Amino acid sequence: MPEAPMTIDPANWVCPLPLRETKRIMLGHGGGGVLSEELIENLFLPAFGSTGKPGRDSALLDVPAGRIAVTTDSYVVQPLFFPGGNIGDLAVNGTINDLACSGAVPIGLTAGFIVEEGLELVVLGAVAQTMGKAAAKAGVTIVTGDTKVVGKGSADQLFINTAGVGVVPPGVEIGPERARPGDHIIVSGNIGEHGVAIMSVREGIDFGTVVTTDSAPLHRLVAAMLAACAASGAPGAVHALRDPTRGGLVASVVEIAKAASVGVELDEATIPVPETVSSACSFLGLDPLQVANEGKIVAFVDPSQSATVLAAMRARPEGVNATIIGRVVAEHSGMAVTNTPFGTTRVIDRELGEQLPRIC
Amino acid sequence: MPEAPMTIDPANWVCPLPLRETKRIMLGHGGGGVLSEELIENLFLPAFGSTGKPGRDSALLDVPAGRIAVTTDSYVVQPLFFPGGNIGDLAVNGTINDLACSGAVPIGLTAGFIVEEGLELVVLGAVAQTMGKAAAKAGVTIVTGDTKVVGKGSADQLFINTAGVGVVPPGVEIGPERARPGDHIIVSGNIGEHGVAIMSVREGIDFGTVVTTDSAPLHRLVAAMLAACAASGAPGAVHALRDPTRGGLVASVVEIAKAASVGVELDEATIPVPETVSSACSFLGLDPLQVANEGKIVAFVDPSQSATVLAAMRARPEGVNATIIGRVVAEHSGMAVTNTPFGTTRVIDRELGEQLPRIC
Repeated sequence: MPEAPMTIDPANWVCPLPLRETKRIMLGHGGGGVLSEELIENLFLPAFGSTGKPGRDSALLDVPAGRIAVTTDSYVVQPLFFPGGNIGDLAVNGTINDLACSGAVPIGLTAGFIVEEGLELVVLGAVAQTMGKAAAKAGVTIVTGDTKVVGKGSADQLFINTAGVGVVPPGVEIGPERARPGDHIIVSGNIGEHGVAIMSVREGIDFGTVVTTDSAPLHRLVAAMLAACAASGAPGAVHALRDPTRGGLVASVVEIAKAASVGVELDEATIPVPETVSSACSFLGLDPLQVANEGKIVAFVDPSQSATVLAAMRARPEGVNATIIGRVVAEHSGMAVTNTPFGTTRVIDRELGEQLPRIC
Repeated sequence: MPEAPMTIDPANWVCPLPLRETKRIMLGHGGGGVLSEELIENLFLPAFGSTGKPGRDSALLDVPAGRIAVTTDSYVVQPLFFPGGNIGDLAVNGTINDLACSGAVPIGLTAGFIVEEGLELVVLGAVAQTMGKAAAKAGVTIVTGDTKVVGKGSADQLFINTAGVGVVPPGVEIGPERARPGDHIIVSGNIGEHGVAIMSVREGIDFGTVVTTDSAPLHRLVAAMLAACAASGAPGAVHALRDPTRGGLVASVVEIAKAASVGVELDEATIPVPETVSSACSFLGLDPLQVANEGKIVAFVDPSQSATVLAAMRARPEGVNATIIGRVVAEHSGMAVTNTPFGTTRVIDRELGEQLPRIC
């Protein structure tokens, strides 16, 4: 991404209106009483820029007749703050991207916080402000929320769940089962940055250059891809989309291969792995193709339209490094292979568990 | 509720298809790899009875043009199992009830699990099965989910977030700000049971009789109330609804009083507090009016329609003990008072925090 990493400085965060004499979260902040109300009114609502009605148990949204997409994700990343972002923008962008992978236009997010007693208010405040900024940048509103507090030692600082609702435009049919032999596989940019950014701070390893998370909302990129296909008379040309988060690129292509009962063949030399990611991964013994991303998308596209889609992606900052990395084949159904730079072929398969725990 | 309490027996739970050789949750179950897939396919999908496509990042739902209601709640109750239910049916019913309080017809729930490494699979399986049964009983589908695993000691067994989406029928206008002087206040049944059920197991106190949670879905009760008003030519007669969970009856009426800038006056002798709840509360030093409920609703209704609404509520099992407990007044805006059985009046106000932490 061409933008500067988001500046996170909990030390400079000031609660817009003073909360009661406390600098830390207490059990009572989750009790549904006066402290809960103060937390909502003085911390969350100013951060989210909401003009909503906090007195409601649910938010009301207008929708056209048709299909909505609904998704949920919990975020438990440690540490909460890392180069280029924090758990807050991850929670906003990650759920937007899950909606985008169905071709949906996000219309609202919910935010559920589970907070450990004793967490400093400035930490929660900085995260909430980041969420509000990320949502505003993406043009999506955080429409409702919930806060629970658990005793000290019963959670690790802060967990966030975001659920999202989006409107799927008429005619959009995107799903993993729609990939078919011949499809070109496009990745929207450099891979492996988020996982390496987390690992570098968690392990205190200095890789020479700071690798920052690629966390970014991708719904506008997807909309541009769909618009380009529609304009060239092939509105259904984007068959499948996936954001390669946990499990990385490998998990995404294997899951689609299984869902569509097709094979996947990647050309390893064409996969954009930055030098910093590559050297960090070789140092840590990780496969960059299995490292998480939070601002990338993998697209399975009809080959007749892949040039059109690629051009539309490269015209946007989120997709400036988009490139074709492989194709769908009729052979080895449910499996993915790569053609290595050495002229050999290797099977790539998902990990049993994960290479890096708690990266999102 | 006239029904027998739900039978929860993790010891008798059998995973529908055998998971890999493990009896406990491992970090890898949250990694997005093969173990995650096995957990979804062998534990969650059979429990939820889903016929959906687990390969998707989001679920698609059909909606008519108009308004949808969106809500979220996290559940962190301890212990996970208690008389009459567990965290699973609480998570399903609680979110359905938040939708019901907007007059919405629930169409889908999301389920986000945060699991502590080492949790026994039978515990997660029993909770998931309870969720599936509760959703089926309510006629609502769990449409998508997410599982994260955190290291041992980084969470307290299991937290669940459920978000919900519902369709608000045309013409339904329910909101806390709509309460107005003269409104009758109706409660749908006995109060205080859920909080006392939790406290009795948590503290190991024997109150003579087992008090079970009142956890129940209330969307059909609300639909019956709205239908009765519409049939008598007053479709907008239900002004405000609230499920008195954290903070109990007091928090609900005070929040509505504040939102609508009105006063609330309750007749304490008419509030249905079971003898078991009353004696447990006096033993524990709690105010039953502040104890959480998970299957009750408080309704603010135009006085000309309160008899109609009351009759509709009493015709359903969830509302058989419904009764009028007070009224809205123009005086003391934002405040609630009760007329005590001794002929005096006392102000009832929310706790700063809560009487009982982690009851939902």
